[in-house]
Amino acid sequence: MATKARENHREDVAGRANVEDTPELLAYYDELERLEAGALWTVANKIEPWQPKSSSVPVLWRYEDLRAHVLRSVELVSPEKAGRRVIYLNNPGRREHAAAVGWLYSGLQVMHPGEVASAHAHSASALRFIMEGEGAYTIVDGHKMTLGANDFVLTPNGTWHEHGVSSDGTPCIWQDGLDIPLVNTLEANFYVVHPDLQQSVGYPVDDMTHTWGNPGLRPAGADWSKGYSPLLKYEWAPTYEALQRYAKATDGSPYDGVLMNYVNPVTGGPVMQTIGASMQMLRPGESTRAHRHTGSFIYQVAKGRGHSIIDGKRFDWKERDIFCVPSWAWHEHVNASASEDACLFTFNDLPVMHALGLYREEAFGDNGGRQPLVS
Amino acid sequence: MATKARENHREDVAGRANVEDTPELLAYYDELERLEAGALWTVANKIEPWQPKSSSVPVLWRYEDLRAHVLRSVELVSPEKAGRRVIYLNNPGRREHAAAVGWLYSGLQVMHPGEVASAHAHSASALRFIMEGEGAYTIVDGHKMTLGANDFVLTPNGTWHEHGVSSDGTPCIWQDGLDIPLVNTLEANFYVVHPDLQQSVGYPVDDMTHTWGNPGLRPAGADWSKGYSPLLKYEWAPTYEALQRYAKATDGSPYDGVLMNYVNPVTGGPVMQTIGASMQMLRPGESTRAHRHTGSFIYQVAKGRGHSIIDGKRFDWKERDIFCVPSWAWHEHVNASASEDACLFTFNDLPVMHALGLYREEAFGDNGGRQPLVS
Amino acid sequence: MATKARENHREDVAGRANVEDTPELLAYYDELERLEAGALWTVANKIEPWQPKSSSVPVLWRYEDLRAHVLRSVELVSPEKAGRRVIYLNNPGRREHAAAVGWLYSGLQVMHPGEVASAHAHSASALRFIMEGEGAYTIVDGHKMTLGANDFVLTPNGTWHEHGVSSDGTPCIWQDGLDIPLVNTLEANFYVVHPDLQQSVGYPVDDMTHTWGNPGLRPAGADWSKGYSPLLKYEWAPTYEALQRYAKATDGSPYDGVLMNYVNPVTGGPVMQTIGASMQMLRPGESTRAHRHTGSFIYQVAKGRGHSIIDGKRFDWKERDIFCVPSWAWHEHVNASASEDACLFTFNDLPVMHALGLYREEAFGDNGGRQPLVS
Amino acid sequence: MATKARENHREDVAGRANVEDTPELLAYYDELERLEAGALWTVANKIEPWQPKSSSVPVLWRYEDLRAHVLRSVELVSPEKAGRRVIYLNNPGRREHAAAVGWLYSGLQVMHPGEVASAHAHSASALRFIMEGEGAYTIVDGHKMTLGANDFVLTPNGTWHEHGVSSDGTPCIWQDGLDIPLVNTLEANFYVVHPDLQQSVGYPVDDMTHTWGNPGLRPAGADWSKGYSPLLKYEWAPTYEALQRYAKATDGSPYDGVLMNYVNPVTGGPVMQTIGASMQMLRPGESTRAHRHTGSFIYQVAKGRGHSIIDGKRFDWKERDIFCVPSWAWHEHVNASASEDACLFTFNDLPVMHALGLYREEAFGDNGGRQPLVS
Repeated sequence: MATKARENHREDVAGRANVEDTPELLAYYDELERLEAGALWTVANKIEPWQPKSSSVPVLWRYEDLRAHVLRSVELVSPEKAGRRVIYLNNPGRREHAAAVGWLYSGLQVMHPGEVASAHAHSASALRFIMEGEGAYTIVDGHKMTLGANDFVLTPNGTWHEHGVSSDGTPCIWQDGLDIPLVNTLEANFYVVHPDLQQSVGYPVDDMTHTWGNPGLRPAGADWSKGYSPLLKYEWAPTYEALQRYAKATDGSPYDGVLMNYVNPVTGGPVMQTIGASMQMLRPGESTRAHRHTGSFIYQVAKGRGHSIIDGKRFDWKERDIFCVPSWAWHEHVNASASEDACLFTFNDLPVMHALGLYREEAFGDNGGRQPLVS
Repeated sequence: MATKARENHREDVAGRANVEDTPELLAYYDELERLEAGALWTVANKIEPWQPKSSSVPVLWRYEDLRAHVLRSVELVSPEKAGRRVIYLNNPGRREHAAAVGWLYSGLQVMHPGEVASAHAHSASALRFIMEGEGAYTIVDGHKMTLGANDFVLTPNGTWHEHGVSSDGTPCIWQDGLDIPLVNTLEANFYVVHPDLQQSVGYPVDDMTHTWGNPGLRPAGADWSKGYSPLLKYEWAPTYEALQRYAKATDGSPYDGVLMNYVNPVTGGPVMQTIGASMQMLRPGESTRAHRHTGSFIYQVAKGRGHSIIDGKRFDWKERDIFCVPSWAWHEHVNASASEDACLFTFNDLPVMHALGLYREEAFGDNGGRQPLVS
Repeated sequence: MATKARENHREDVAGRANVEDTPELLAYYDELERLEAGALWTVANKIEPWQPKSSSVPVLWRYEDLRAHVLRSVELVSPEKAGRRVIYLNNPGRREHAAAVGWLYSGLQVMHPGEVASAHAHSASALRFIMEGEGAYTIVDGHKMTLGANDFVLTPNGTWHEHGVSSDGTPCIWQDGLDIPLVNTLEANFYVVHPDLQQSVGYPVDDMTHTWGNPGLRPAGADWSKGYSPLLKYEWAPTYEALQRYAKATDGSPYDGVLMNYVNPVTGGPVMQTIGASMQMLRPGESTRAHRHTGSFIYQVAKGRGHSIIDGKRFDWKERDIFCVPSWAWHEHVNASASEDACLFTFNDLPVMHALGLYREEAFGDNGGRQPLVS
Repeated sequence: MATKARENHREDVAGRANVEDTPELLAYYDELERLEAGALWTVANKIEPWQPKSSSVPVLWRYEDLRAHVLRSVELVSPEKAGRRVIYLNNPGRREHAAAVGWLYSGLQVMHPGEVASAHAHSASALRFIMEGEGAYTIVDGHKMTLGANDFVLTPNGTWHEHGVSSDGTPCIWQDGLDIPLVNTLEANFYVVHPDLQQSVGYPVDDMTHTWGNPGLRPAGADWSKGYSPLLKYEWAPTYEALQRYAKATDGSPYDGVLMNYVNPVTGGPVMQTIGASMQMLRPGESTRAHRHTGSFIYQVAKGRGHSIIDGKRFDWKERDIFCVPSWAWHEHVNASASEDACLFTFNDLPVMHALGLYREEAFGDNGGRQPLVS
C-alpha cells in the first residue's frame, strides 16, 4: 500500500529525534493518523525548537506614506458602513492574523469633527495613542476623556467604549493597539454592540485622571480591583516631565535609555492584563546596546528622529513613524540628534510573558553590544 | 488595472462593517498592501467575532485503540533515535500545531524497565499522568519521585527533568500533557539538553512530597517563590481519599460533580502558570448539567465508565480513555454506574484564561440543563 | 487564714461572669496566684469589654502655645547633649508611654541653620511634617531630600536617617511622628547609632522623588520590595493640587470631605507598615458628619481654620495646631471659612488595624450625624 | 519655686541624650507639662532602647500542679455564673494584662460531659489545644468540629463560637490561647453574646476538615478570602505523620529540630492574622542551639520530655507542661530521651511581627551555640 509523504524533522544531536523513514514506519504513521494520532519523533524537533523563531518580520511604517491613505479613507467609506475607518498594519509574516507583530494588532484611525463611533465591548484589550488633531475624546464605561497629541488612553477588556471628535475639533488620527489576534487565537473573544449604540457620560469629564493621576496619593475609600488601571488616560505633558525628572536620577538602561512603564497606580503593575506600554527617552546623541527578549513590541516615535537596528537591519525613523520588534529579535536604538532628545512610545505583550513565566532576556555580547549590519 | 480578489467579511448589523467592494476600493486595497497595510473594515467582522469559535473538534481517543500502537513503538524505534517513544494526540482541527485541543499537546509515552530518557529543560510546562506499569520515576531538578497508576507529576517550565523505569519494574505507559503549542505560538520556547544527559539525584527520594504534601502544615523556613508548585507529585491514594472526604461536605457542582483542583500548596493557586489540573468524581448515577467556558480541556478517565456530551455529540468512555473539550463547547458528564463512582482527571489552560482576564462561563439554560443530541 | 482583697469584675448578663467572692474562692485564688495563675471569671469581663475604651483623651495642642517653648529649647540645651531638641506631646492618659495618642508618639523639633543631627536607625518607623523654615533636609539611606513647609518625609523602620538645616537656611520647626510606643510595647525596638555619626549622600538630591513621584509611570527595571514607600518625600504643592483635582471628580466622604491617602506607589498601599498618612480638604463651609473607628489619629492643620468635635467636645483649630482623635472616639470636622478650604494632615496606625484584621467603623446615626456637645 | 523630681534617662554615648537637670530646665519641664508636653531628651534613651527588654519572665507551668486546681473549679463555680471555668496563666511581669507572655493570653479550661458554653464573638482571635478527655467539640459559625487530644482548633476574630462536651464523653481539659491582651491594648476589642446563646449547626460535622484538609487539593469554586484559615481544625494524627514525613526530607533547623507551621491552605500563610502556631519534633537525643528573635511564644509539650534553657535558666518539662519564651529571650531545647521523639506545640505572635516588619533574629554565637546556665 502506498503511503503518503510526511514531515520528519531529524537532528543528529544526542537527546533529539533522528529516526529515518522506513516503509514499515510510514505504514505505522498512516495507522496512527486514522486514530487522530501521530508519532512524536517525526515532529519533536519542530515543536521543541532550540530557541524562538518569530514568524513576524521587522517592519517600519513611515507616516508620510500612510497618512494620505488614512485621510483618503474618509472619502472612500462612511463611518456607518465601515464601522471605523482604520488602516491596519499588516506584518508580512502575520497576514492570516491581521497582526502588526506577534499577536498584536495595530491600525491608524481617522475621525472628523462631529463624528462618533458606536459603543461596543469586547474581550480584547485596546489602547489609542493620539497622533494628530484637536478635540478627540474617548468614553469608557461612562468616563469621558479628552485627548491631545501623544496622549494614550485605555479601552480595556470588557468595557463599553467609544471614540469621537468634538464638533469644534479638527480631523484626528490616532494609532489603535489591540490584542485581538491573541484573544482570538486563545479562543476567548466576545463582541457586543452597545444596545443604545452610544453610552451616556456618567461622571465629570476626566474624572479618572483627577482621581487616580496624582503622584503618591490615592483617594481614600476608592476601591479598585479590576484587572486594568483606573487611570484610563496617560497624558503627554506629565509623561514627558516624568522622563526628564527620572533622567536626573538614573544613568538609564544600556539597552533603552530612560525608560518608564505606564502602570496601574493601584498595583504598580501593567496597565492591562495583556498589554503593557512604555515611553522611553533617548538622550541627545544616545546610542544603546543591543539585546533581545521574548515578547513582541510596537513602537511609535513620539518625538525626534533616529534609527533602530533590528536583527542586523537598519530602520530610520522620525516623528509619527511606527515600527515593530518581533520576539527574540536583537534591537538597539540611536538618537540622531546631538542636541534634542527622542521619545519612543511602545506597547507590547510583556504582561503575558510575565504572567505565564515566559520572559527571557539576553544581551548582545560581541562588538561592544552593537550588531553588525546585515546586508 | 486588474486587482486580485480579496476577503471581505460583511455583516448587515449596526456597528459592524458592511462595505461593498468597488473598483476604486479594490485599487485602494492594493496600494495599502504595498505598504504592508490593509483596510480594517474588510476583516473587522472576522477578527472581532461575536463569540469564540474553536478550531478544535471534540475527540475521544479510546485506550483500547491506542495501547497496541503505543507498545509497538518499542519495537519500531529505539529510545536513542526517537528521543522518546510517544504517540501524540492530533486534533483534526489542530494538526499544524500538533495539538490535542486548543494550545495543549498530549501524548502517550511508553518506557521499558531499565530505560532512561535524557535530561532536558524547556520553556514549555509539562505533566505526566501514569496509566499503567510499575517502577516509573521522574527526576526534576535533582528531586526523584516514584510513580504509580493515576499519580500525576509536574515537570515545569525551566526545570531539568527526565523520566525512567527502574530495572525491576514493568513496561510503563503514561500520558504527557504540555503547553508546547502555546509556548511556541507565543514565540517563547527554549530547549536545552542537559550537558551530562542525566542529572544526579540530590535529595532523598520523594522529598518534596514529604516536605510539601502535608495538609495544613508547611515546613518552617522552607521558602518557595517559583511559579509552580513545590509539591511536584500528586499521588492517587490521597487524591481519591480527598474526593471522598470532600463529597461528605459538599453537594458538588451541578456541572462537574465533586471537583477538586490540584494546587500549589504555597499559594493555593494552580500547579503551574500555564496549566491547571483537576480530579473530579461523578457519584454513582450522577448526571451533570451542561455549561461552557473559555479554556481548553483534556480529560483522562482515571476510574469507572460513562459518557460525556460535547456540543451535542455523545462520547462513551471507560477507564484510560482520553477526550477533549474545546473552548466554549457545551459539555456535560454522566456516570454509567449506579453503584460505583467515576473519576476524571483533567488538565487545561485555565491559568492562562484567569491570568489574562479571559475566563467566561455560561450555563446551558434550556431543557433542564441537558443538551439535545445532534445527529 | 486572711486572704487579700482582689479585683472581681461581675456583670449580671447571660454569658458574662458573675461569681461572688466567698472565703473558699478567695483561698482558691491565693493558691492559684502561687502557681502564677488566676481564675478567669474574676477578670473575664474586664479583659473582654463590650467595645474599645481608649485610655487616651482628645487633646488639642495650640501652636501659639508651643512654638515659643520649642524655640527656647535651642537656648537651653545643645544638640550634642540633647541628641535632638524636641518637645514631645504627652497625652494625659498615655504619659507612661510618652505617647500623643494610643501608641503613636509625636513631637516638635527645632533645628538651626548649619546644624546636623547624628545619623541613626531604629525599628520604629518615623515621619516628619515641616511646619516652618527654609533649608531643612533629611537623608535616608544615602538619599538626600530638601524640604519645605507642609512637605512630609519618611524615615522608615531600619533605615539610616538624619536631619539637618543648610547653613543658608532659617530656623526650622517640624512635627515628628513615630510608632515608638507601639514598637516598644511589642518588645521589638532596636536602636543603632551610625558608626560615622553621619551618612554620605550617595545619589542625586531628591532622586527618589524624581524616580517614583510620577503619576502613572514607573521606572522600568527599578525593583522595590521593601515594606515602605520608595517615594520617601511627599511634597505639598502636588499634594494640594491633587486634592483640588480629586475634588472635581468626587462628592467626597460625608465624614472626611476630600480625603486622600499618601501611598506606596509600588503597591498602592500605605507609606509604611505601621503608620499611614493622609491629607484631607474641607471645602469652604464644609461640615462633616460624625463617625468613629478603631485606630488612633494625630492631625496637623496644614491650612485654614475651623473646629472638630471629638466625643462631644469642641476643639477650635487654626494653621499649625495639632490635635488627636483616640480609637473609637466620635469625631466630625468643620471648616470655619465660607470662602477658603482647610487642609488637615493626619498620621495614624490604620495599617496596623488593617494588617491585623482589627478595623471597625460606625456612623453616628442620630441628630443628622452631628454629635450633641457635652458640657 | 520648687519643682518636682522628674525622670531623666541619661547616657554618655555620642548620639544619645545626656542633659543634666538644672533649676532652669526643671522649671521649663513644669511649663511643658502644663501644655501636655515634655522634653524628649529626658525620656529619649528610655523610649529608644538599644534592644528589646521584655517585661515578661520565662515561666514553666507544670500540669501536675495545675490539673487538680482546674478540676476543682468545677466544684467551685457553675458554668452559668463563671461563663467558662478557666484557670489562666498569669506571667509575673504581665499581671496587669492577664497575659501569659507578652500580649498573649492562655488558660486551661475544663468542661464536663453534656455541658455547653454560650456562643459569643469577639475581635480577639482564639485557639484551643486539647489536653485530655473525650467528646469535646467546637462550633465556629455553624461548623461543628469533633476534637481529641493534641487537636488544635481555631475560633478566629469575628466568628461566632462555642465549646461543649457531648453527653457520652468524659471531662475534657484544653488550653486556650488568645490575643486578648494585644487587641485590648490596641483598643480594638468588641464582644458580643449570641442572641440565642447557642448557634445551630448548619453543615455536616467536620465539613471544613473534609473540604480544606487535603494535601495539594482544593475544592473547585470554593472561594475563601477571610483573614484566617478555613481549615479550622488541625488534627493530631496527620500532624504527627507530617512531622515524621518531613523529617525524612530535612536536616531540620539547628534551633528547632523538625518544625512545621500550621498554615492557611488558601494562602500558605499563618492560621490567623495575629496568632501563628507550629508543631515541632525534637528527634531522639536532639539538643538544639540557642537563638533569639522578636515575638512571644507559648509552648505546650504534646509528647515526650526534656528541657529548655531560656535566658540561661533551665526548665524541665514533660507531656502537658506549658512554658513561655518572651520576646528576644535566648532559648534552646533538649529532648531527654535517646529513643523517643518529643513534640512541642507553640502559638505565638509572629504574624504580628511579620505584618508590621518587626521580626529580627539572632543566633547565639558563643560556646557552640549553647547558653551557659545562670545561677
